[in-house]
Amino acid sequence: MKAHVYVTLKTSVLDPQGQTIQNALRKIGFNEVAAVRQGKYFILSLQDGLTPEAAQSHVEKIAREVLTNSVIEEYTYRIEE
Amino acid sequence: MKAHVYVTLKTSVLDPQGQTIQNALRKIGFNEVAAVRQGKYFILSLQDGLTPEAAQSHVEKIAREVLTNSVIEEYTYRIEE
Repeated sequence: MKAHVYVTLKTSVLDPQGQTIQNALRKIGFNEVAAVRQGKYFILSLQDGLTPEAAQSHVEKIAREVLTNSVIEEYTYRIEE
Repeated sequence: MKAHVYVTLKTSVLDPQGQTIQNALRKIGFNEVAAVRQGKYFILSLQDGLTPEAAQSHVEKIAREVLTNSVIEEYTYRIEE
């Protein structure tokens, strides 16, 4: 079972790294990109034999307590059977 | 229209950052995580008025040529209307 966790800056937080990427894209001719935000992406391989409920509860906890700085970031995740 | 681009290390490439996260998780008691891989996540906001075909072609090109180092990384993306 695999869990995919996506961590992004909250929309109220400036993202200079994303802005830099957007500027770079514009300089090389990709003008159709209006904005870029960069986030982090984690793939967690979970041990066999976990129930879907246990998996979800572990992943939720790991995403909230370890992978995300809740002051400036937010997370989403999906679990793949 | 938004495009979500996910860039990960190829599976044949070692991921010391992911391994460090896994070790840290194990130390604080999350033993059900067998492996962690870390990747990058980009959200591109595209200008209005692009056709889905044009959007896909731009995003494909940006992902392949700019956001991914094809020697060690691979990408997937999805476009959200």
